[in-house]
Amino acid sequence: MMLVNGQPRDSVSALDRGLSYGDGLFETIRLIGMHAPLWNRHMQRLLLGCERLQMPAPDPQQLWQEALQVSEGLSDAVLRITLTRGIGERGYALPAVSDTTRIVAAFPMPALSAAIYRDGIRMHRCATTLAEQPLLAGIKHLNRLEQVLARAEWNDPLIAEGLVCDQHGHAISATAANLFAVVDGVTITPAVDRCGVAGVARAAVLDALGDCQIGDLPLAECLRASELFLSSSVRGILPVQAVGDNVYAPGPVTRSMQRYWRGLGFPMEQA
Amino acid sequence: MMLVNGQPRDSVSALDRGLSYGDGLFETIRLIGMHAPLWNRHMQRLLLGCERLQMPAPDPQQLWQEALQVSEGLSDAVLRITLTRGIGERGYALPAVSDTTRIVAAFPMPALSAAIYRDGIRMHRCATTLAEQPLLAGIKHLNRLEQVLARAEWNDPLIAEGLVCDQHGHAISATAANLFAVVDGVTITPAVDRCGVAGVARAAVLDALGDCQIGDLPLAECLRASELFLSSSVRGILPVQAVGDNVYAPGPVTRSMQRYWRGLGFPMEQA
Repeated sequence: MMLVNGQPRDSVSALDRGLSYGDGLFETIRLIGMHAPLWNRHMQRLLLGCERLQMPAPDPQQLWQEALQVSEGLSDAVLRITLTRGIGERGYALPAVSDTTRIVAAFPMPALSAAIYRDGIRMHRCATTLAEQPLLAGIKHLNRLEQVLARAEWNDPLIAEGLVCDQHGHAISATAANLFAVVDGVTITPAVDRCGVAGVARAAVLDALGDCQIGDLPLAECLRASELFLSSSVRGILPVQAVGDNVYAPGPVTRSMQRYWRGLGFPMEQA
Repeated sequence: MMLVNGQPRDSVSALDRGLSYGDGLFETIRLIGMHAPLWNRHMQRLLLGCERLQMPAPDPQQLWQEALQVSEGLSDAVLRITLTRGIGERGYALPAVSDTTRIVAAFPMPALSAAIYRDGIRMHRCATTLAEQPLLAGIKHLNRLEQVLARAEWNDPLIAEGLVCDQHGHAISATAANLFAVVDGVTITPAVDRCGVAGVARAAVLDALGDCQIGDLPLAECLRASELFLSSSVRGILPVQAVGDNVYAPGPVTRSMQRYWRGLGFPMEQA
C-alpha cells in the first residue's frame, strides 16, 4: 500500500522535481510487527538531508502514522519513505514555496536464507567508482545512478552485493549497504564524508562497537581483512564470504554484531 | 500539454525508477513554429545516454510525433522529453525487462529581454563544485542535485546564471548552459568528459566555430577572457556581462555566434 501526501494514491505529478532532477531524499526502513527499531536514526538522517538540500523538514509523527497505515497486515515489511521538493516550474532554481511531496509505501520483506547469515555473501568488485561530492555525501538523496551502474555490473544471482571504491582506490561501501573490515585486529569502516551514504545500520553498529575506526580503507587493506561484513537497515549484518577470489570466514566481530542486531529486535536468521 | 507513454496524462507511477533513483535522461528542446532546428543533435545525445545507462533506446520518430502533438498551438515552445527506466522492483538492480517511461511535455517559451542578448547577462561565481564521474559526464541524466545546489546559491533576479567549476578550480559551465571563453585570441570551451553536460547548443557552436579548443579552462584564465558567452539550446547565445566583479563586453566571436544562431532558425532577440 502507498500514500502520497497522506492520500491513497500510487502516482505523482510528472512535473515533480523528484523525477525531473532527483531533487529529494529517501529512507528504506525495516518494520517488524509495527515496530521499527531504528526509526529515530532514520528520521535524524532524513532531517539532516532536508537541511543539506534546503528542503522543508517533514513531521516525523505524521510519517510514523502513515508508516503504520501502509504496513497494516504485514508482519515483516520494508517501508520506503520518499520526500521530494515537490512540483516546480521548469529550471533548477528552488521554487519560491516548496510544497514537498511525501510518498510512504510498504512492501513485504523478501525472504533471505539462513545460509546468508551463517556463511556470508559473495561480492563482486565493482569497476564503477564513486565521485567525491562532500555536499551530497552521507545523506540518502535520490541521485543514485552510480549505484545503478555499479549494480548493473553483474547478473549472477549467487553474488549478492558489489564492493565499490572511490576514485583513489579506497573501499567505500557495497552498492546498498555499508562496509566494516577487521584489519590487524582493528575494526574499521570507511569515512562517508566525500562519497557514500552514512547508513543508519552503520551508525547503530558504530555505537555498539565503541572502538571502530572511521577513515580511509585502501582496497588492498580491505581485501586482506580477517573479517568483512556489511550493515544494512533492511538486511541486517551480512558476513562477507568472498570478494571476487578473496575469501573470508565470519569472525568474532561479525558474530557479535549479529547478536547485537537480534537484540535490537530484528528477526535475523540464526547464524 | 503532456503525454506519458503516448497517453494524455500528467502523472507517473510513484514506483518509477526516474523518481526512485533519478534513473533516466532528459532533453530540453526549443520548438519554433513546429520546427526544432537542433532535433537531430538532441536525439543523438539521448541515444548516447541510453547506451551509457544501458537503457532501451526510444524511437525518435515517435518522439517527434508526440512533440508536435503536445506543442500544438504554441508558436514558440520549450519541449521537455524525459525517458526513465520505468517501474522497477525495489533495489538498484536493473529490471529483467526495462519498460521505459516516456514523458513528452511542452511549455510556452518564457519571454527574454532583448537587453540580455545585446548587453549580456550577469553571473554568480558558484561555490558548489562539480564532482568528477566520467561514467555520467556529458550525458543529460536525471541526477541533477549539483545543479540544484549551485542554482540555490543566489536569489538576485538580476543574476541570470552561475559559473560552476570542478574540484580542481577549472571552469566547467553555467548551471544550465555551456561556456565559451576567448582568451588571448583563442576560443576555448571546457571539456565535459569528467563532469558537465555536452550541450546540444555547444555541439552546434563547436561545428560553427571550427577552430575552438576543447580542454581545461582554469578559473583565472576564464576570468581574464576578452569575451565570455554561454550556449543553451533554449536560450541561445548569451553574452556574459559580468562574473561577480569581473566585467566583459560582447565581442566579435560572441556576435558571430549570435548571427549563426539566428541563421539556424532561432528567433533570438536582435542584439
